[in-house]
Amino acid sequence: MGKATKIAILGLGTVGGGVYKVLEMQKEEMERKLGSSVEVAHILVRNLEKAAAKVADPSILTNDIDVIINDPEVRIVVEVMGGIEPAKTYILKALKAGKNVVTANKDLLASEGQILMDTAGENHCDLFYEAAVAGGIPIIGPLKLALAGNHVAEVMGIVNGTTNFILTRMTRDGMEFSDALKLAQELGFAESDPTADVEGLDAGRKMAILACAAFNSRVTFDNVHTEGISGITARDIRYAKEMGHVIKLLGVARNTERGIEVMVHPMLIDESHPLAAVNDSYNAVFVRGDAVQDTMFYGRGAGELPTASAVVGDIFEIVRNIDFNCCGRIGCTCYKQLPVVPYEETCSKYFIRIKVEDRNGVLASIAAVFGNNNVSIEQMVQRRKQEDFAELVLITESVKEKNLKDALTILRGMSIVKKVSNVIRVAQ
Amino acid sequence: MGKATKIAILGLGTVGGGVYKVLEMQKEEMERKLGSSVEVAHILVRNLEKAAAKVADPSILTNDIDVIINDPEVRIVVEVMGGIEPAKTYILKALKAGKNVVTANKDLLASEGQILMDTAGENHCDLFYEAAVAGGIPIIGPLKLALAGNHVAEVMGIVNGTTNFILTRMTRDGMEFSDALKLAQELGFAESDPTADVEGLDAGRKMAILACAAFNSRVTFDNVHTEGISGITARDIRYAKEMGHVIKLLGVARNTERGIEVMVHPMLIDESHPLAAVNDSYNAVFVRGDAVQDTMFYGRGAGELPTASAVVGDIFEIVRNIDFNCCGRIGCTCYKQLPVVPYEETCSKYFIRIKVEDRNGVLASIAAVFGNNNVSIEQMVQRRKQEDFAELVLITESVKEKNLKDALTILRGMSIVKKVSNVIRVAQ
Repeated sequence: MGKATKIAILGLGTVGGGVYKVLEMQKEEMERKLGSSVEVAHILVRNLEKAAAKVADPSILTNDIDVIINDPEVRIVVEVMGGIEPAKTYILKALKAGKNVVTANKDLLASEGQILMDTAGENHCDLFYEAAVAGGIPIIGPLKLALAGNHVAEVMGIVNGTTNFILTRMTRDGMEFSDALKLAQELGFAESDPTADVEGLDAGRKMAILACAAFNSRVTFDNVHTEGISGITARDIRYAKEMGHVIKLLGVARNTERGIEVMVHPMLIDESHPLAAVNDSYNAVFVRGDAVQDTMFYGRGAGELPTASAVVGDIFEIVRNIDFNCCGRIGCTCYKQLPVVPYEETCSKYFIRIKVEDRNGVLASIAAVFGNNNVSIEQMVQRRKQEDFAELVLITESVKEKNLKDALTILRGMSIVKKVSNVIRVAQ
Repeated sequence: MGKATKIAILGLGTVGGGVYKVLEMQKEEMERKLGSSVEVAHILVRNLEKAAAKVADPSILTNDIDVIINDPEVRIVVEVMGGIEPAKTYILKALKAGKNVVTANKDLLASEGQILMDTAGENHCDLFYEAAVAGGIPIIGPLKLALAGNHVAEVMGIVNGTTNFILTRMTRDGMEFSDALKLAQELGFAESDPTADVEGLDAGRKMAILACAAFNSRVTFDNVHTEGISGITARDIRYAKEMGHVIKLLGVARNTERGIEVMVHPMLIDESHPLAAVNDSYNAVFVRGDAVQDTMFYGRGAGELPTASAVVGDIFEIVRNIDFNCCGRIGCTCYKQLPVVPYEETCSKYFIRIKVEDRNGVLASIAAVFGNNNVSIEQMVQRRKQEDFAELVLITESVKEKNLKDALTILRGMSIVKKVSNVIRVAQ
């Protein structure tokens, strides 16, 4: 037997258990692959007894972080506990003790990424986090390495599997949101409190992390405008389809001349776009760069083994870096300080569904309101409905958020307008 | 101004010109990104006068490789000439002189990869080749790094843009092969001698390189069974569509218990598979691992700037390695010696189109031949045609190549069989 690199895992939940398993699965090969095997020296857990059943040798379990921090042989700390504290304190302690860190903690990175990266840099340690965004899909590494020769103009992502599963069922089976959510909960794709997924918060954190890696400038979760999918109906999806689009919860980050735009919201996307074919609980990240043009990275955005795949990839990379004495080689890549554009100042195309009185001249009146507010219409569908109301469905050209709001305020005040049923952005 | 890392580019064709451009595009940022700027010290060209118009400072042009090899300040040699010789000699010279190498040369890597990697290893140099497969799409890096914690079971790729463009036009517009090829040539997607693309040779070279990176075992182009798309007709594509499939030129590499299977041929693929939505001249590589499950990498497989994106990503990675004195950190990852399974021993599902006499009992006779040869039928469509002939179109279960061949030999000898019009494999 040759060298062994000792690591500690903080947390033995779904991801921690997955990391333990994948390291077992790689046991035979890792030494030939890396020049060193990886030995799990400690696992930090809250309940030692409960955890004992999950590992071959329970003596590696501890509930004391200092056992890990004070073990000079531990070279890599793998944080898979989640949450802000105590994860933040533990990671900072580990880095200050000269240990390299792998984390899957999107909440922490999206809010406290800068101090973590700075501390890693000061201590010449690696801090890798491939698993924090889009689970097993390699995306942080490619953005920092293979795509480093690009100015990235745009990153669009389906980075939440729960909402993608729900929207896929609504699209395929015509289900309404509440039924699809219930199904997702039954199948284990959604938590009992689905807020973070359904309202776009989880996706927002991932988009903050992606924007940092893509644009070389710090973006935090506070900078991300988020909207969820609870207001999307099966009817919206049907009309979108008629107009050649599907509805997805999209994270969008753009590097514009005025600064970074970053948001998460449901969007219509052209059915020929590669992201439109990403279904069920799959994730995908679409990247547009000035040299590489359009690329997309697709796969499992969550789950025990896929997430562990990304964590173990990071562990292996650090093992090689330790061997070559080059930890800290890829540190913080946010060397710019770009402003973030306020959401109200961004432009978009919009899909709008309006219930109006079904009589002559209505269309002209409504078109006039849009025209007077500099909102141009790209396409429109009109349908007669029951009870003397008609439904107008239209897609605008790209307009300022503010102009659209003004037009909608006027429309809502008109007697011929029964209801503005929905307003959804359209990807360009 | 800080440090500059000097590089030399061998060749100033499409890719070489692209690399020069992308480095110019990154000029302002590279020092902040890498801690060092990249300076093109030499470009090797055949015709100095012709090349002079393409660069800002013609004094960097040379037609003498030894000027580059003997310049001790040149740390990275970028080989974008293509072809086996003199590229091989130049790369080996550069490595032996202690220079790191980036190459986009799939022909060379697919046949001589081992000696190149060995020489790099002996001289503690990096030898990177992200651009050799699927142009700008990051795939070699992810296989060696982010996905290193996986046993990869299968890699399937659409890795030739010319044939994908042709098949897309045949599918969308109902064109026949020869017309679609002509169009591809007019639009610059196919060369005047399209053999290497159309007959699957180019894709075969890329699959050899991918198989090495995916399975950690040396696979050369000789090991790859290749078939092209010139025998595919619009009628095949229409029937495939009826049966829920599209036809793609797919590279398939599998790591089975008996060894590595690796081949390129036209295949039917289920229309819900992510590769089925990869159209026009786009490429994509689908990877299935035991931890990550299904992933896909999509983008531009060729072109000046996309290919240069991959080359420059490699250059930047080496610049960081030079700075941290860790060149050679990721060397040859082929530490296994797996056998390659002869093509005749592989199994597949098949799509078969047969023209038969249109009379009673024909179907039963044909079904009996398949049954007697252990070929099970999964689905079948029968169509009456003009002139008293009917067309049988069927998809088999997975069968051994040998069993299928036996059945087809018997069928071809039967008087009721007018013609076996086509036999195409079906992806599982």
